[in-house]
Amino acid sequence: MVSEAKSKAGRRPAVPLRSLGLSLSGGDQRDAIGKLTEELHRRFPHLSRSYFITTDAMGAMATATDHGGIVLIAGTGSNCKLINPDGSETGCGGWGHMMGDEGSAYWIAHQAVKMVFDCMDNLEVPPHDVGYVRQAMFDYFQISDRMGLLTHLYSTFEKSKFAGFCQKLAEGAQLGDPLCCHIFTKAGEVLARHVVAVLPKIDQRLFLGELGLPIVCVGSVWNSWERMKAGFIQVLAQARDEAPGGVFSGFSLLKLKRSSALGAARLGAGRAGLALPLERAGERRGVLHTPVLSTGERAGNGRAVPKAPRKSRPWLENPGSFSRRGNVGCGSKATGITGNHRESLGSPGITGIIRNHREGAGRPKLLLETPQFSKENSGSAPFPKKTPKNPQGSS
Amino acid sequence: MVSEAKSKAGRRPAVPLRSLGLSLSGGDQRDAIGKLTEELHRRFPHLSRSYFITTDAMGAMATATDHGGIVLIAGTGSNCKLINPDGSETGCGGWGHMMGDEGSAYWIAHQAVKMVFDCMDNLEVPPHDVGYVRQAMFDYFQISDRMGLLTHLYSTFEKSKFAGFCQKLAEGAQLGDPLCCHIFTKAGEVLARHVVAVLPKIDQRLFLGELGLPIVCVGSVWNSWERMKAGFIQVLAQARDEAPGGVFSGFSLLKLKRSSALGAARLGAGRAGLALPLERAGERRGVLHTPVLSTGERAGNGRAVPKAPRKSRPWLENPGSFSRRGNVGCGSKATGITGNHRESLGSPGITGIIRNHREGAGRPKLLLETPQFSKENSGSAPFPKKTPKNPQGSS
Repeated sequence: MVSEAKSKAGRRPAVPLRSLGLSLSGGDQRDAIGKLTEELHRRFPHLSRSYFITTDAMGAMATATDHGGIVLIAGTGSNCKLINPDGSETGCGGWGHMMGDEGSAYWIAHQAVKMVFDCMDNLEVPPHDVGYVRQAMFDYFQISDRMGLLTHLYSTFEKSKFAGFCQKLAEGAQLGDPLCCHIFTKAGEVLARHVVAVLPKIDQRLFLGELGLPIVCVGSVWNSWERMKAGFIQVLAQARDEAPGGVFSGFSLLKLKRSSALGAARLGAGRAGLALPLERAGERRGVLHTPVLSTGERAGNGRAVPKAPRKSRPWLENPGSFSRRGNVGCGSKATGITGNHRESLGSPGITGIIRNHREGAGRPKLLLETPQFSKENSGSAPFPKKTPKNPQGSS
Repeated sequence: MVSEAKSKAGRRPAVPLRSLGLSLSGGDQRDAIGKLTEELHRRFPHLSRSYFITTDAMGAMATATDHGGIVLIAGTGSNCKLINPDGSETGCGGWGHMMGDEGSAYWIAHQAVKMVFDCMDNLEVPPHDVGYVRQAMFDYFQISDRMGLLTHLYSTFEKSKFAGFCQKLAEGAQLGDPLCCHIFTKAGEVLARHVVAVLPKIDQRLFLGELGLPIVCVGSVWNSWERMKAGFIQVLAQARDEAPGGVFSGFSLLKLKRSSALGAARLGAGRAGLALPLERAGERRGVLHTPVLSTGERAGNGRAVPKAPRKSRPWLENPGSFSRRGNVGCGSKATGITGNHRESLGSPGITGIIRNHREGAGRPKLLLETPQFSKENSGSAPFPKKTPKNPQGSS
């Protein structure tokens, strides 16, 4: 990949890069990173002068914003990382499928399969009929009974294959199967609980941007946001109600429009003493969701229509340009290359475009929907009117 | 093992057994069993003329009783199998650690570790302080932080090693750590739910024995019965209350005093057309628990003292002879050998003693405790007085 990038940039393969930034799942495991760096130096001495390896979460964050925020990954696996403006980090989850991965594609697939097993065993009563999910399970794994699934769980287990069943469940939810919808709502709830988990460690400055707390959503599960929304908003609304002094004043869900490699390149460049200016923030990320905090409006269940006049949110007129099949998945390897010369940085998909930007200056063009927090969502009182900041102002 | 048995029985190794009975975890997977049998014939042509391979549950059941009942395995993994007098089977669980294993040592260890992780992540509030469990976890896995556990969960994962942490939790429960106690209570609940799951398929004749429905308890987790009792009894009591017509009239928990190999040998002999009479049932199994169904007494929380006069349950005077560190674990391979000649069957630990027996004729000598079902346990009304059978009669 690096050779190809050098070639596209018109550079000789033997001339090393100044820095290679890598954004990898598990990129916070020091021993592994040390060994990887050592091996890269040994096996590819002309690849790069230096390496900067970080997590997929950090790469995503550096792609989306300069100021920190929360990265919430829900791809094959799941993870949540709060990155404060001072660089300090607090995590929740990210321990893999054996210890959680709640809200991930694996988790969603596992929840569904487990409900089928427990129902057929008469061990648990499922919340809805399992017929659709059972048949989808037999079809996806190409099995005729539950015994056939055991090989997929043990001898030939592949997490990505198992997690791939999530896509069939997303289709089921799209068709209105109640059990599929239920599971995605639960996924929304548990993903929101990750955000709530890191709230106590948050730097209050993160609420001061015009979109409120930025939550960068990474991974294919977010393609099913419509199905998760009710659960997600309910949990965050409750956390808002319980937060002392209304400090949790607003948030926006952002989705990357550029690869996490961009952030990796940026961080790698920084490590090499180079500043890598990026395009405008609005070009790097879209807004998946930003709640409106006024009272008396309802939404979040995916059915209600916002009461606020549409003219107050003109970006709703143009939602179509946001890809709902993003290819930035958890666990994917994002590589950011910082070349010896700035003019070599333009390879699409590899690194950034050199352009000055002002963080948050662009109006978000890609907002998919703007449902409202409401009494129905929070299960308790609506947000107090003293809410310090109304993200509607960002429009 | 077979050669050793032949040698002990004074038989020549070249003379094949009439039948070799094997009781194996996973012994209901036809393809695997077919291959195993074929391989045994091919590689060891003089080992045995015929083979009978069945599950660990069936081996345990055939060791304990002729008439069927429920086998409830809680060792490294867990499983529940109802075997009706007509030989028909209904299962619940047994799908392995990736799909449940609820109530097993693996599950208990996993519950504990997960609670520590979720507490440290601030994702969930644990029901009790995690301090003891966290330290025990660090000590058992010889790690200094949670990251260190990942290798035990993934690259070097061994189910039995992970499940071994259950023993430390049992020690914690013994010391009174509230979180350990809580987890074992939960294990009791979920194991009882396996029994409840198969109740609809039960042949009513299984309630007619003097001990009521026999539940054969296999696996090391049952060594912590005292810690699981409250949860177990509560769930079964509730099921009794909800059963139509009071058909679920009584049950006893039995624990094997002989290896499941005995049952395997018996079944293997039967397949070869030989009847293998066994010692008295009371010599093959002990009674771990049998509830008394009268009202107005309380127990099941591990603290209350039965109010019934001790003279009415004389077996309480002699509880010590029942080993509380049974070595019949789930997943262990039990081999029952049926020799060419009856006189070769006496090898200890391999097969049975030839003696006529009358099922259930012996008074159970090894009852550990006889707590009472009560209003407190069931969380609803006490058992109706119309309960058709009072297991106290079995004393």
